[in-house]
Amino acid sequence: MTIQPKPDKRLLARRAEICRTAAQIIRERGYDATSVNDIARALGMTKAGLYHYISGKEALLLEIMTFGMDQIDAEVVVPAREIEDAEERLRSIIIRHARIVTRAQGAVTNLTDEVRGLPAAGRKKIERRMRVYFDLLRDTMAELKAAGRLQDVDLTVATFSVLGMILFLPRWFRQGGRLNAERVSTEIARMALGGLIRPKPARARRLQLVKIP
Amino acid sequence: MTIQPKPDKRLLARRAEICRTAAQIIRERGYDATSVNDIARALGMTKAGLYHYISGKEALLLEIMTFGMDQIDAEVVVPAREIEDAEERLRSIIIRHARIVTRAQGAVTNLTDEVRGLPAAGRKKIERRMRVYFDLLRDTMAELKAAGRLQDVDLTVATFSVLGMILFLPRWFRQGGRLNAERVSTEIARMALGGLIRPKPARARRLQLVKIP
Repeated sequence: MTIQPKPDKRLLARRAEICRTAAQIIRERGYDATSVNDIARALGMTKAGLYHYISGKEALLLEIMTFGMDQIDAEVVVPAREIEDAEERLRSIIIRHARIVTRAQGAVTNLTDEVRGLPAAGRKKIERRMRVYFDLLRDTMAELKAAGRLQDVDLTVATFSVLGMILFLPRWFRQGGRLNAERVSTEIARMALGGLIRPKPARARRLQLVKIP
Repeated sequence: MTIQPKPDKRLLARRAEICRTAAQIIRERGYDATSVNDIARALGMTKAGLYHYISGKEALLLEIMTFGMDQIDAEVVVPAREIEDAEERLRSIIIRHARIVTRAQGAVTNLTDEVRGLPAAGRKKIERRMRVYFDLLRDTMAELKAAGRLQDVDLTVATFSVLGMILFLPRWFRQGGRLNAERVSTEIARMALGGLIRPKPARARRLQLVKIP
């Protein structure tokens, strides 16, 4: 009998801290200009201490991206699959994804561009997971379109535009500013859905437009 | 009497070519890893030939950003200032900005992040011009809000979200793909305005909602 060890809470928190801090430094200095030593120093660890968790810079980059996709899966994809109504699912995806992006100045999200720096096997794995997420978003809109609930927009443009609104957040959102993460996430979802969704047919059937001359 | 020389058309085209090619290489390799020699080679010029146009790598970076802001001014800001109706102005700004971003894989736009790499004086000049553009976009939405024509959205979130939709374009738009630049720009504008604009009061006055039990 194999005993599956429970994931250690402290270890998970340490992983998040290492990934976020490393992502911030790589973002500031660039991947090539950042050494494992720089990252260890920022974490208040020795280089040897950091090597206890990761085997090198490339492995760290893969770990950061894996961490990012794990967050998307656990906090966006899994809850979304439980939501039957496509409009509610779309709203939930946008709000939950935006919420993740507001953390740690979006450092982990921002690092997505570095996916090309990964060795082929790692890159493929991450890109496959990104694709699954993209498809969830696109399929949700396709479902709305099929039900006549989407405005007349191209699905590709719509999907990438929603992602653009979310992924631009790290460029301007400041923790502790006038707008908190909750408010910003909700506003983005409202604006996106406002541009995408037609009034529900049920509601439209009960209302009629009368032109008054 | 001073005779103002007309800008030479060929020189302007050469400037655009140098800026776009340089931006693409810097984007691919990173600013630090790119040499003036790399850029000259990509342009089919000698290093000496390129130095005829620019005095060095930092000057080139400033020139690329100046070129980018010149495009925004000439093709977005100037025409927008001629449009009295705020909704039409907003639509024009989005379509025209998106159109610029679809050129040369958005290399010039993408380089905006490197603004921090500029010496202080150049950085200030570019950031001031970016601010003017940002304010035009925000003020246009503020005008719509004051007229009761904007949905209930925060102006900061709305402005950055529109920019996010536009500036994400280089990540996915491919020249010669299924969707051309014109179509994509129009779709983005339609989606953004759909999420932002209330029906015009004039139209709303002529229509009445009647609930049919």
